[in-house]
Amino acid sequence: MRCPEFSFEVVAQHGKARAGIIHTPRGDILTPVFMPVGTAGTVKGMTMTELEQPPIDAQIILGNTYHLYLQPGTSVIDLFNGLHNFSGWKRPILTDSGGYQVFSLSGLNKIDDDGVTFQSHIDGSKHHITPEKSLEIQASLGSDIAMAFDQCPALDQGQVFVEDAMRRTTLWAERCAAYQRPSKQALFGIIQGGVDLSLRKKHLEEITAFDFDGYAIGGLSVGEPKESMYEVLDGFVTHLPEKQPRYLMGVGTPEDIKHAVLAGVDMFDCVMPTRNARNGQLFTAQGRMVISNAQYRDDIRPVEEDCSCLACQTVSRAYLRHLYKNREVLYIRLATQHNLAFYARTMKAIREDILLSSS
Amino acid sequence: MRCPEFSFEVVAQHGKARAGIIHTPRGDILTPVFMPVGTAGTVKGMTMTELEQPPIDAQIILGNTYHLYLQPGTSVIDLFNGLHNFSGWKRPILTDSGGYQVFSLSGLNKIDDDGVTFQSHIDGSKHHITPEKSLEIQASLGSDIAMAFDQCPALDQGQVFVEDAMRRTTLWAERCAAYQRPSKQALFGIIQGGVDLSLRKKHLEEITAFDFDGYAIGGLSVGEPKESMYEVLDGFVTHLPEKQPRYLMGVGTPEDIKHAVLAGVDMFDCVMPTRNARNGQLFTAQGRMVISNAQYRDDIRPVEEDCSCLACQTVSRAYLRHLYKNREVLYIRLATQHNLAFYARTMKAIREDILLSSS
Repeated sequence: MRCPEFSFEVVAQHGKARAGIIHTPRGDILTPVFMPVGTAGTVKGMTMTELEQPPIDAQIILGNTYHLYLQPGTSVIDLFNGLHNFSGWKRPILTDSGGYQVFSLSGLNKIDDDGVTFQSHIDGSKHHITPEKSLEIQASLGSDIAMAFDQCPALDQGQVFVEDAMRRTTLWAERCAAYQRPSKQALFGIIQGGVDLSLRKKHLEEITAFDFDGYAIGGLSVGEPKESMYEVLDGFVTHLPEKQPRYLMGVGTPEDIKHAVLAGVDMFDCVMPTRNARNGQLFTAQGRMVISNAQYRDDIRPVEEDCSCLACQTVSRAYLRHLYKNREVLYIRLATQHNLAFYARTMKAIREDILLSSS
Repeated sequence: MRCPEFSFEVVAQHGKARAGIIHTPRGDILTPVFMPVGTAGTVKGMTMTELEQPPIDAQIILGNTYHLYLQPGTSVIDLFNGLHNFSGWKRPILTDSGGYQVFSLSGLNKIDDDGVTFQSHIDGSKHHITPEKSLEIQASLGSDIAMAFDQCPALDQGQVFVEDAMRRTTLWAERCAAYQRPSKQALFGIIQGGVDLSLRKKHLEEITAFDFDGYAIGGLSVGEPKESMYEVLDGFVTHLPEKQPRYLMGVGTPEDIKHAVLAGVDMFDCVMPTRNARNGQLFTAQGRMVISNAQYRDDIRPVEEDCSCLACQTVSRAYLRHLYKNREVLYIRLATQHNLAFYARTMKAIREDILLSSS
């Protein structure tokens, strides 16, 4: 059943690219949108206030079901009536289903049509997650958008494996669609099918039959050549329902996002701006700046002259490099703020381009 | 030569305890004062704005000469005309002389009456620091209060070693006093002498002969029993000149600070609030809270109900524990803010007590 308080409208279109608004009980989300990743109930290095304020002004963030289920666990989150009160974030949250992390992070896992049995990457404890259990956890988290439990096949497992993952993801999507979730929570279906356009279209038919509130493209940006991803995007995205938001999971670089928006995608998430910041890579209009490079030792300029983030407004490249070399927490804070501001600025420009071009 | 723009006035006294004001070209400092430690040009985890704003409102911070000399080096700091512009901190800075770190952090070091030769703890490179070199670095850093280069003897090296360190510290103090430093920079002398009151008084005579802008008690809180430190404070502090600020280096717990203020000390620095925060210890009026303890797993209360720090105003003990268990940067930020706010509140209460009791 669709969520009555969740809706999407396209306000402008240019080619395949769409500018839209997602309406949720916790506020509107202007699309195309980038969602910072808050794995364990925190976007690493940031306060919720910093995320909400310009220039980042995040409209929605992600929470990871797998991580939060293991730590602190739903019994703690329940005391706070969900992740919003626990973390202090007031705007919308999207939670993934945990499926991807179960396969990529956990120890030995065993999958069958009922669900997945796995060992925690933290303490080795054994857990069993089914589609229903994933939604039960996401109900505890109280996210505004929940994701259906899916199986994301690794790149190198071959077509038979991809088709089996599609079959199982469809079975699970049906069970997710039938699950009684909180009335204010939207639910997105996930479409698998690797880099094969005909498989993608076949799976699309199966998943859209359950009439979800939105649709995600899973199983891309998992190591395939960039051209393969672009081919799927160019040939597939417009087949997704027009009236629901389209979400490309785990993507990506600013260039990937621009390409995907041109192909018709509305929503994105990726650890890239936050993780790259921690690893010393700063995004700039001139490309990525590796702050440890010797050339920045004496560089009294800000990272970007026209950036309004805390880093660019208050410190130099030389100071940032000094902090980075000393592994200072302040470096992580400033670099993360810059990269998230860069992504926010990029998304804003993309949306404005669509609005201007369509009028 | 005394710094013409630096002065100290006692505005209230109760017993030996003093409430005062240190006047510097970069603003007044109300004493007793606690100075957060900004080892490498950053108070770990904090922005300069957070340090300046209530409830922390730090009036002065420390910078470490040894660390900043090695990284980024004075050639970088010089491009910014000092540590203030490099780091973005606008209020007063006190720099230590580097002596303590040379002995405690560096590799093989060799000391003679000229100075100290040592190996960097970062890359093993060899350096030679003399009293003049220490002040040359501190001039580059542009601190408002510089410290004379001293030898701080370790606790277990015996009286002969303590007396030799005193003799050398006096030689070096004379050279520091003769060094032509920036006109706006005050210079404090350091008094050694271990836990022996007569040695302390002897060294005091020697050091005060050079008419410094203030006097520091070095060589305490280096592992001696707390009672020994208290005995030195109780029997020695009032022998220091009345009209200059008295600075107890590297101390300490809130209890130690209260004891030292009652003995007549005006200034303090310590890594305790910041380092303990990182290690999971939060200061509260009820004692130290070890946030990893299982009892906080389900604790929806803030660390302290009546604390106005960012942590206590926005998150619960359960959330902080969750962040700590996940080694999240946000934990370090929130915990550091709380502990520095606790120290600031403690110092404010101590000062108000003196003002009220004296009137």
